[in-house]
Amino acid sequence: MTTVHRVFNFAAGPAVMPLPVLEQIQRDLLALPGVGMSILEISHRSKTFESILEQTEADIRTLAGIPSNYRILFLQGGASLQFSMVPMNLLADGQSADYIDTGSWADKAIKEARKIGQVNVVASTKAENYTRIPATPEISVTPGGAYVHMTSNNTIEGTQWKALPTAADVPLVSDMSSDMFSRPIDIAAHALIYAGAQKNMGPAGLTLVIVRDDLVAKAKSRAFTLPTMMNYAVHAENSSLYNTPPVFAVYATGLVMKWLLALGGLPAIAVSNERKAAKLYAEIDRTGFYRGTAAAFSRSLMNVTFRLPSDELETMFLREATAAGLDGLKGHRAVGGMRASIYNAFPEAGVDALVDFMRDFERRRG
Amino acid sequence: MTTVHRVFNFAAGPAVMPLPVLEQIQRDLLALPGVGMSILEISHRSKTFESILEQTEADIRTLAGIPSNYRILFLQGGASLQFSMVPMNLLADGQSADYIDTGSWADKAIKEARKIGQVNVVASTKAENYTRIPATPEISVTPGGAYVHMTSNNTIEGTQWKALPTAADVPLVSDMSSDMFSRPIDIAAHALIYAGAQKNMGPAGLTLVIVRDDLVAKAKSRAFTLPTMMNYAVHAENSSLYNTPPVFAVYATGLVMKWLLALGGLPAIAVSNERKAAKLYAEIDRTGFYRGTAAAFSRSLMNVTFRLPSDELETMFLREATAAGLDGLKGHRAVGGMRASIYNAFPEAGVDALVDFMRDFERRRG
Repeated sequence: MTTVHRVFNFAAGPAVMPLPVLEQIQRDLLALPGVGMSILEISHRSKTFESILEQTEADIRTLAGIPSNYRILFLQGGASLQFSMVPMNLLADGQSADYIDTGSWADKAIKEARKIGQVNVVASTKAENYTRIPATPEISVTPGGAYVHMTSNNTIEGTQWKALPTAADVPLVSDMSSDMFSRPIDIAAHALIYAGAQKNMGPAGLTLVIVRDDLVAKAKSRAFTLPTMMNYAVHAENSSLYNTPPVFAVYATGLVMKWLLALGGLPAIAVSNERKAAKLYAEIDRTGFYRGTAAAFSRSLMNVTFRLPSDELETMFLREATAAGLDGLKGHRAVGGMRASIYNAFPEAGVDALVDFMRDFERRRG
Repeated sequence: MTTVHRVFNFAAGPAVMPLPVLEQIQRDLLALPGVGMSILEISHRSKTFESILEQTEADIRTLAGIPSNYRILFLQGGASLQFSMVPMNLLADGQSADYIDTGSWADKAIKEARKIGQVNVVASTKAENYTRIPATPEISVTPGGAYVHMTSNNTIEGTQWKALPTAADVPLVSDMSSDMFSRPIDIAAHALIYAGAQKNMGPAGLTLVIVRDDLVAKAKSRAFTLPTMMNYAVHAENSSLYNTPPVFAVYATGLVMKWLLALGGLPAIAVSNERKAAKLYAEIDRTGFYRGTAAAFSRSLMNVTFRLPSDELETMFLREATAAGLDGLKGHRAVGGMRASIYNAFPEAGVDALVDFMRDFERRRG
């Protein structure tokens, strides 16, 4: 195989994948070993795919320590469809659901839920441009509420929860799209977790849902009114094979799970993620030339957002960084400046290269 | 590259893909030429992906002659989600929709639509085990109805419409999941066409919707109540980039569209599909040992269903065929026997191999 030129990809998602996973996909693309067909061609009802699906589920259970009273669903439509599926399945008439508003995506989840039922925004940092996660005393969960919804990592604003909110007996639902499997997860503290695959798990096109059995039972009671494809219970009872799942994305995600397990699982990747982020934040804080946009205690280990002293310098920084093979650093327009997304698969060498570039840029332009 | 063993894959979907497309995907899997990232890693907001999406749409427009007053949407969730999206977007209160019941998938579409609104089943061949498509005089479309829904090819039962039903001024909606782009399409006779990609267009995980502007406008009026992800107008206005689309499946489908255009487009592939199917049906009809399950005038060019004289012979046939590298021939349990799915990308050499095998089997076991 010829050497291939690859840049450092800081994109917020879809994002960088582990190179050994890409190499395995490439090697087996014309035909899976012993199968005689490409992964792109195999029936989702074949023994080959059933075994891929079962193995991926088993590896996810091992990786995150998922108890047996939780189902793992392989769905489509991304977090955006979950914004509707969560209330459609879990928010009964006469009930209300609590939402914690920590960023643009949390806000979208709230807007969708309001189409379905009664929503209480029980804490929001919108007035502070979402630069921080609310502190525990700021959040008052509604007793008897259907669930509390949170966004564990705010991709756009570069903030991340460091400890879970106190939800008492109310089921906790978390959108983990941008930090799924980046650190150990207290699964038992959650009732439902969802995440698009395309940041920390695999290619775009797969949505993972981890849901406790009692919530599946609640969904089941809605089978006569809810569209079948929107019902968690249908997917749980059919082991994600009610309809054709995104076969290739499941396969690729399964390979990423094996890669994570081989690295030492979530404790090991958490250490790596902390080390990568610490290097970047240290450089941001070193002289004051760069300015982190998130409050220090809420800083994300996944999306590192920072500004430069002027728009002109930011434009120059972006142009020169891209030319130096540091791609995708432009921040979201809601925040401006830079965003370095450094998910699980982002190599530490890329963080080192960015730090070197930042120092050099400051020396030349500061 | 070493030679890879590939079998003939008669699966009903996900199904065989063109080998040159698989080879191109494999070649560029670590990094798209000049981009330095894998197609599995590129941002859906990148210029690279925008260009892939635009080119794929343009090629589809060319291929099927799609007029400018139709939108092409790249969605997720398969035909199963369309079963709900169609009525949620198009079936207004006080209206009803007509459904033509020609098979198991049409029946599922009917069940989902009934959760949303008033449904009239205006023709059904269920009592005849769906062995044929209804004749024009059997179908009485409801004047003023929201739409008429049909299933252009019935994957399980092996039947296919040869001419469109007369729908007068009522919008015609067609599920073309299993014969999309297998023959020229009279787009202007349709108001909406949908199809999962995994049979005739590409890998699983992408759903194509072709929808006329007036139906998009109807969907737009429901923006305040419909989940955003379920609204055709949202996807149309955002050029399928409202949320992260299934990037890889769009890319792979785009390559298949280029392959189809290079072959000569829909007229050319139709000739090839007719020739392949004719060979199989000729063998089925040759002596009476094999028996086609579909009425002759409704026979599908995509899914060729047939039985053998006994269950024992069918079991034997399947086992020996699989051993001979003819894979995926087991028919759906609703019909029994064999089903040879011979979509666009299925090679004629595979049809010839099956015909040879059938002759040999009859000679030995008949």
